[in-house]
Amino acid sequence: METDFEKPYVIGLDMGGTNSIFGIVDQRGTIKAQTAIKTRAYPDVKDYVKAAAEALQPALDVVGGIGQVKGMGIGAPNGNFYTGTIESAANLVWSGTVPIAELFEEELGVPVRVTNDANAAAMGEMTYGVARGMKNFIMITLGTGVGSGIVVDGKIVYGSDGFAGELGHFVIDHSPAGRPCGCGRKGCLETYCSATGVARTARERLANCDTPSLLRKIKPEDLTSLDVYQAAEAGDPVAIEIFEWTGEILGRSCADFATFNTPEAFVFFGGLTKAGDYLMAPLRKAFEENILYVFRGKTKLLVSSLNGSEAAVLGASALGWE
Amino acid sequence: METDFEKPYVIGLDMGGTNSIFGIVDQRGTIKAQTAIKTRAYPDVKDYVKAAAEALQPALDVVGGIGQVKGMGIGAPNGNFYTGTIESAANLVWSGTVPIAELFEEELGVPVRVTNDANAAAMGEMTYGVARGMKNFIMITLGTGVGSGIVVDGKIVYGSDGFAGELGHFVIDHSPAGRPCGCGRKGCLETYCSATGVARTARERLANCDTPSLLRKIKPEDLTSLDVYQAAEAGDPVAIEIFEWTGEILGRSCADFATFNTPEAFVFFGGLTKAGDYLMAPLRKAFEENILYVFRGKTKLLVSSLNGSEAAVLGASALGWE
Repeated sequence: METDFEKPYVIGLDMGGTNSIFGIVDQRGTIKAQTAIKTRAYPDVKDYVKAAAEALQPALDVVGGIGQVKGMGIGAPNGNFYTGTIESAANLVWSGTVPIAELFEEELGVPVRVTNDANAAAMGEMTYGVARGMKNFIMITLGTGVGSGIVVDGKIVYGSDGFAGELGHFVIDHSPAGRPCGCGRKGCLETYCSATGVARTARERLANCDTPSLLRKIKPEDLTSLDVYQAAEAGDPVAIEIFEWTGEILGRSCADFATFNTPEAFVFFGGLTKAGDYLMAPLRKAFEENILYVFRGKTKLLVSSLNGSEAAVLGASALGWE
Repeated sequence: METDFEKPYVIGLDMGGTNSIFGIVDQRGTIKAQTAIKTRAYPDVKDYVKAAAEALQPALDVVGGIGQVKGMGIGAPNGNFYTGTIESAANLVWSGTVPIAELFEEELGVPVRVTNDANAAAMGEMTYGVARGMKNFIMITLGTGVGSGIVVDGKIVYGSDGFAGELGHFVIDHSPAGRPCGCGRKGCLETYCSATGVARTARERLANCDTPSLLRKIKPEDLTSLDVYQAAEAGDPVAIEIFEWTGEILGRSCADFATFNTPEAFVFFGGLTKAGDYLMAPLRKAFEENILYVFRGKTKLLVSSLNGSEAAVLGASALGWE
């Protein structure tokens, strides 16, 4: 990547439904200054952009002003790289198509790029993280949902419409038993391998077996993937088996995904990766058992090394160097 | 694509285990001259290349000699674009790694590119066929096996190792009931949706039901996908149902594949596409029923318009323009 030494910083914006977090980032991926505003507080997106610019000013002063900034990257729900817009994002207060890149370009006077959270995460890993130097890899984010960012020849795959890389909505169970997904269909990967998927698996297992488990102390509707992890840490066999089942599904799915672009690596990020080897050991085993023989031994299975709370801002900022 | 008007032709080589077919092709995809040699007749690849050059001479004379040729493209089993080699191809007489591009470059004095058959087919559709002008599409070849060529941003996805785009080996049935595949695993797409997969489905259906069928006149071990097509044409309900089942599997698999690069189109090619709407109607229906809502209506499902017997040579030749 070309870096402009006249302008050694970029702005990253991690836009969530509730909060918008801004960071000023240098070439090494160090956040030099940070600020935040409430996304929901601005029903008119123009007010949001003005408020953002005001909030950014003290952070920009730390690095010598906007003249030191090469560009800005935004990771936003339904962010479209091609158009620079956010399109019908259910979690945001603005309806329809929002020309967010254009609005920030006018306000700040620097180039602005937009993409969704998982693609931003992939950019972050490629620019500052474990995927540095890789030309072909697949980022898998394991949070409330499952997101993905696919990198081919050093570039994010945006596809024909700007929304490519939705492996969380790959259907892994086409049978009527496939779990209902928020997308309106059934059996999507994210209904099994997200944090909410793990909690759901826990509720199902506990209802369908009599094995004693620490998880039975928690009301089923309150169960989270963190509870399952803590129970696994305490040696709970049901909890351990839940992660084994989840890792197996994710591992064999990744083996299938490898047929697309034979990635050098899969990089996993998000809350569920905190489960460590409870998840990653069965994932690795299933991947090796299911990978096409000609691809065997070619693919690394890595966990993101970026600081969780900084990763989203760093990922978004990476777009600013483009 | 830049075309070199000083050198208005390319050579395409469709290399099979038995025959090698060469064509001299112009920018419009017209084969101006053609020749062939027996692949198997040359246990030493150097003899093969010499024989090929000799056989090509009269064809080259038709277009004014090798000076009129910009480059050569080869579609070969296990052809690796990155290295210009053929690697351990089970169907070829040469074992190990064969530096086929280098050998032809030395013999002919023009640049030579190699890839596998399905990627060559995708190049052919992009250069001369129904995918002209498309930047993101997926080619699916339905022959003895199922091959694929994935195009992102106008370029074939070769992946980290040169062998990417193996969607025929995407596992669509991870259960123990998944059909054994030639790759050594079970449940690969190609065990269901190739010509041999359709013949196998026919044998299974006939063994497991009592419905009268024209297909019962044929010895099970002699059944082919062509027999199933001819029976469907004659109104045979078992044959029609076989294509419906096959089309449904392929359609929902393509809906899943679309999450990778949201292609403008899937382009289907190969013997099985001769089944026409017996296959394509259920395929389209399953695709529309299974596609992620945000991708709905964005993807065309097309059948190759290239002449079947010329398509492989044209596809290979398209690499010669690069």
